[in-house]
Amino acid sequence: MFLYTENFDEQREKAMEGLRKALVENRVDEDIISLLEKINSLENYFTTSSCSGRISVMEMPDFGDKVNAVWLGKWHREVELGEVIEAIKKHSSGQLWFLVRSPILHVSARTMGDAVRLLNLAIGLGFKYSNIKSVSHKKLVVEIRSTERMDVPLGADGELWVDEEYIERIVAIANSQVRRFKGKLEKLEEEIERLKE
Amino acid sequence: MFLYTENFDEQREKAMEGLRKALVENRVDEDIISLLEKINSLENYFTTSSCSGRISVMEMPDFGDKVNAVWLGKWHREVELGEVIEAIKKHSSGQLWFLVRSPILHVSARTMGDAVRLLNLAIGLGFKYSNIKSVSHKKLVVEIRSTERMDVPLGADGELWVDEEYIERIVAIANSQVRRFKGKLEKLEEEIERLKE
Repeated sequence: MFLYTENFDEQREKAMEGLRKALVENRVDEDIISLLEKINSLENYFTTSSCSGRISVMEMPDFGDKVNAVWLGKWHREVELGEVIEAIKKHSSGQLWFLVRSPILHVSARTMGDAVRLLNLAIGLGFKYSNIKSVSHKKLVVEIRSTERMDVPLGADGELWVDEEYIERIVAIANSQVRRFKGKLEKLEEEIERLKE
Repeated sequence: MFLYTENFDEQREKAMEGLRKALVENRVDEDIISLLEKINSLENYFTTSSCSGRISVMEMPDFGDKVNAVWLGKWHREVELGEVIEAIKKHSSGQLWFLVRSPILHVSARTMGDAVRLLNLAIGLGFKYSNIKSVSHKKLVVEIRSTERMDVPLGADGELWVDEEYIERIVAIANSQVRRFKGKLEKLEEEIERLKE
């Protein structure tokens, strides 16, 4: 019914070309490169996009208006209170948010059976929001995603709604979320070769 | 390869029995019942669980420890500042969070083609986090989910980290998210019959 299996090798070649280019241009999160390499060495999978998870300070004109959103600070690691404060100081207009996002990987699979095997492995390793993101003639995409997340409004239109002590507290919670999802990424990298066959 | 299509009618009967029971026991969010009825009137789909979206105040021993989490307040509608404050006053120990969750519907589909048609309809109507949640011999489940979400730490161990003015502001943002996702649910209810055939 769907033709993704027939298109798999062609799409894979395109994706690997894109990844090589992204690597050269330093557009791939460094701490996820070895995991991507392991996935891409498997016969029945290839990665199409990825983020290793992040803490960020973002300014947006209105909730959900990602087009006009601006990152005032973005880190793929634990953060210090000082650097978050520095980012917050750049705020001038719109809504100001402190955000945590879990890692997210998009992986194309050759067949639905391959997709389900990866999906179940990822869910079993704690990536509980993993799912099959799209099914089309061209591609069958598994999304690997975890539950860690924060969406905290900090202020608006240049005004701050919280004090530094509050920011210190949410930074501590965010850092514990980062440690948690980095641990899951490590486990995934250890276990991904179970899909080799 | 997968047998979900063969098991569809049997699984559907079980799910409909469960739904009837849940309706009698008032365990189904009222504002989503007519949408569930419309989906369940379609030949190739049935619902297995649903939430119409909510604002809540939750106390949990540690991040992600849902087992021991306790709702101090939960509303499937816009809220007043007063009722949120009342819920917050009940806090005594653990982490205190203010949460918004988008609607979430789990819908079994008869075939992968049916699943993809529903998935694409939902994404097109603004339910951008929709996906295929699981594929097994028994069931093929589409998850319909939107992007609205807030995860705001409010305090811990009986101590409040923010003032009432801050709570007033996040309540306003949460209410605007509720209006947004209720609008999407209405559109979905209008458009779902496009899957009739």
